[in-house]
Amino acid sequence: MQIAVLLYEGFTGLDVVGPYEILSRMPGAEVVFTAVQAGPVRTDMASLALTADRPLSEVTSPDMLVVPGGPGTEQVLADTAVLDWLRAADAGTTWTTSVCSGSLLLAAAGLLRGRRAASHWIALEHLPLFGAVPSTDRVVFDGKYATAAGVSAGIDLALHLAGRIAGDAVAEAIQLVVEYDPEPPYAVGSVAAAPPDLVASLRSTQLAVLPR
Amino acid sequence: MQIAVLLYEGFTGLDVVGPYEILSRMPGAEVVFTAVQAGPVRTDMASLALTADRPLSEVTSPDMLVVPGGPGTEQVLADTAVLDWLRAADAGTTWTTSVCSGSLLLAAAGLLRGRRAASHWIALEHLPLFGAVPSTDRVVFDGKYATAAGVSAGIDLALHLAGRIAGDAVAEAIQLVVEYDPEPPYAVGSVAAAPPDLVASLRSTQLAVLPR
Repeated sequence: MQIAVLLYEGFTGLDVVGPYEILSRMPGAEVVFTAVQAGPVRTDMASLALTADRPLSEVTSPDMLVVPGGPGTEQVLADTAVLDWLRAADAGTTWTTSVCSGSLLLAAAGLLRGRRAASHWIALEHLPLFGAVPSTDRVVFDGKYATAAGVSAGIDLALHLAGRIAGDAVAEAIQLVVEYDPEPPYAVGSVAAAPPDLVASLRSTQLAVLPR
Repeated sequence: MQIAVLLYEGFTGLDVVGPYEILSRMPGAEVVFTAVQAGPVRTDMASLALTADRPLSEVTSPDMLVVPGGPGTEQVLADTAVLDWLRAADAGTTWTTSVCSGSLLLAAAGLLRGRRAASHWIALEHLPLFGAVPSTDRVVFDGKYATAAGVSAGIDLALHLAGRIAGDAVAEAIQLVVEYDPEPPYAVGSVAAAPPDLVASLRSTQLAVLPR
């Protein structure tokens, strides 16, 4: 099973590495990091670069797509070469997935019309621009399309995918290997849980997470 | 505040990118990825490489150290150049931290003698070899040394560090930005929670997580 992870300048690192850490441990999984050009690709926070081992042109028929989000999404929304690649690759996938504002890219490629999708909470309102139905769930499955909420939600998404693809026993083993028994120090990790003034403050600045 | 993240062949990706995603968002934080030689460094699962922007020789006085674990730990335990660098860098840090079996490297450098430390659950038993006191807690603070349990625990560690360094309000904002409101699909993410036969099975194979 080939899993293609799309990289682009300004993606968010954890959007990619969370799912990678889970999915790469499935038996038979082959993960390939790919970008318009092969080579290092910088994340939104600039100090981290991940290597794209192959250009998009060499990754034509993955079994799974993983599309991260991040402030770089804004540029990619206008990049017809990447959107064309997403459409072409999606035609042959068993699973097409995204984390964070990555669902905007799937939607902009026309892949989520009429489908429910998750996204980063700040990006969620933009999904209807492309015909998708926003969901505040952390992980959303609609047919072969599986989308996650912001950044860290990619870990949960990937464990659900591992369960469906490799079975619960494998997914459970992976969860124990990565010791995923989270203990968040604060009870503010979602819009529903956070104080309204914190939500409003972040929504106005949008920090460095999302297309502006 | 300069945060130096050590990379070495065979580290575990999420050990690094979890904390990075949190710590890099603190005001004034400058993260530098460093390795014996600058350039791409492959993780344990081989398909992912992160770029070390500077060689260890150019990173001499970080304010914080972040040391990941992974199966590559085994080689680094015998690498006196890296252990010497850890000792020298630690002399000037405000915080010295590790994720997963990275605590074995801090311990092997002689930095955890008599101190409580966390580690990946499979690696925990090796800490006393270097005079450290193993703890099954997910995040352990002992003086300026802050250590996390396996892989995903680095996210929790980093949020605790952000709270201590930048204050609770900043840490809470970061937690909401990365939408860290985890919903693990299985209740098996720790040794305490997992079925004993799964723990025993992984302990015997040790998968690709830890020094053998």
